Amino acid sequence: MTKYDELTEFLLRLGDSALIQAQRLCEWTGRAPALEEEMGMMNVGLDLVGQARNWYEYAAERINDDTDTDADTLAFRRDERAFRNLLLVEQPNGDFAVTMTKQFFYDAWQFHLLTMLKGANDERIAAIAAKSLKEVTYHLRRSSQWVERLGDGTEESHQRMEKAVDAVWRFTFELVEKNDAELALSESGNIPALTELPGKWLATVNEVFAKATLTVPDAPNTFYLSARTGMHSEHLGTLLAEMQFLQRAYPDASW
Amino acid sequence: MTKYDELTEFLLRLGDSALIQAQRLCEWTGRAPALEEEMGMMNVGLDLVGQARNWYEYAAERINDDTDTDADTLAFRRDERAFRNLLLVEQPNGDFAVTMTKQFFYDAWQFHLLTMLKGANDERIAAIAAKSLKEVTYHLRRSSQWVERLGDGTEESHQRMEKAVDAVWRFTFELVEKNDAELALSESGNIPALTELPGKWLATVNEVFAKATLTVPDAPNTFYLSARTGMHSEHLGTLLAEMQFLQRAYPDASW
Repeated sequence: MTKYDELTEFLLRLGDSALIQAQRLCEWTGRAPALEEEMGMMNVGLDLVGQARNWYEYAAERINDDTDTDADTLAFRRDERAFRNLLLVEQPNGDFAVTMTKQFFYDAWQFHLLTMLKGANDERIAAIAAKSLKEVTYHLRRSSQWVERLGDGTEESHQRMEKAVDAVWRFTFELVEKNDAELALSESGNIPALTELPGKWLATVNEVFAKATLTVPDAPNTFYLSARTGMHSEHLGTLLAEMQFLQRAYPDASW
Repeated sequence: MTKYDELTEFLLRLGDSALIQAQRLCEWTGRAPALEEEMGMMNVGLDLVGQARNWYEYAAERINDDTDTDADTLAFRRDERAFRNLLLVEQPNGDFAVTMTKQFFYDAWQFHLLTMLKGANDERIAAIAAKSLKEVTYHLRRSSQWVERLGDGTEESHQRMEKAVDAVWRFTFELVEKNDAELALSESGNIPALTELPGKWLATVNEVFAKATLTVPDAPNTFYLSARTGMHSEHLGTLLAEMQFLQRAYPDASW
């Protein structure tokens, strides 16, 4: 398995999570409950593809080997085991409640992480984070409102939200786990310390769930697969097979 | 088969064509040759969903029956035979050359049609046309550039473009046919006369194909299916089955 330096792995984690989340969102095109929501999901998806590209471009410059790695090869030509996305974002969409719950957990994580990263000493990271944060602030507002509306809505919508939270909660452990690699990156001065990230993420979840009349489950179990080591749930392989078909069928289709 | 008045049919023709074209574009998400192109196609798709919604809202107000018709029911709950989209846009994407050729033919048609419609006496049509035209001007520039780049590119890309033109040209007859319903609409003063539309469309095709070193085929045969009568090629049913699955599975999923 290809292993890059810690900063590059961190960039891939951000880029891969954004790309895979965008891919899941776009699976809703033509299947959303309403045209308004369809456009909302396409807009968020488009923002995330743009963010992924920015992280990939920086990662590709750092990889700098003899394989002409660029943002496109990172997106379209890596194997499943080389992807560093959060397990949360590769989970299937399920119904609209599951999709919005995943989106909300991811948005809250992005929001607090990017807020910290825009103060990074690494100017490239600070710039991408600041630009992304404007978009993510809107994403989080939108998904929070949906969680509140569905949770505190009809009896059926409330039940569906509870089931959705049950289904995806265990994948949030990656959003709150302490991690040696990120600790090392903050000690070497590349990124700020992320020690407050778990607490801030959980505070946002508590606040929104209170309005949504939803119960926050106990802290997620940290013993599970981890995308950090390239171990994924069974869903990523299928998603990549779809996503990378063209590039793999015609690897040098430069025309 | 439900049959509406001529103006409503005309609005559905515009809305349905935009929605189906958007749907085809979004099938490329995660499969584009590059992230840049993926974002380009998502952007165009998003514009077109917005345009479709505007046309549908106006159409829904005109239908005004006792079935609570709105933009969403027009998009997600009509049968294949009730769709009025151009046959061109329902054709499968094929390779990137076919996709771009379809897009270019459609963009050129939209560009000239909307330019005329923004002068319509019907203020609602004039406003939607003016707003859409800003987006479509960009779409046409983009697809024209791709047609030129691929046509006047490598030997392979040129050959693929020639095959693409062969494959979709026959569906362009709907873009240039004379039509009694539109003539009646212009005589009643709802829309401007569209008599110059075929000539302007063909002039744009001639100009771009000359730069692309591509041959413009003879005028397309007008004897074929026509979406105006609800007759579609075999591809629309499959597309709608995908697109409308959620709404049809849970028709009252208002939560």
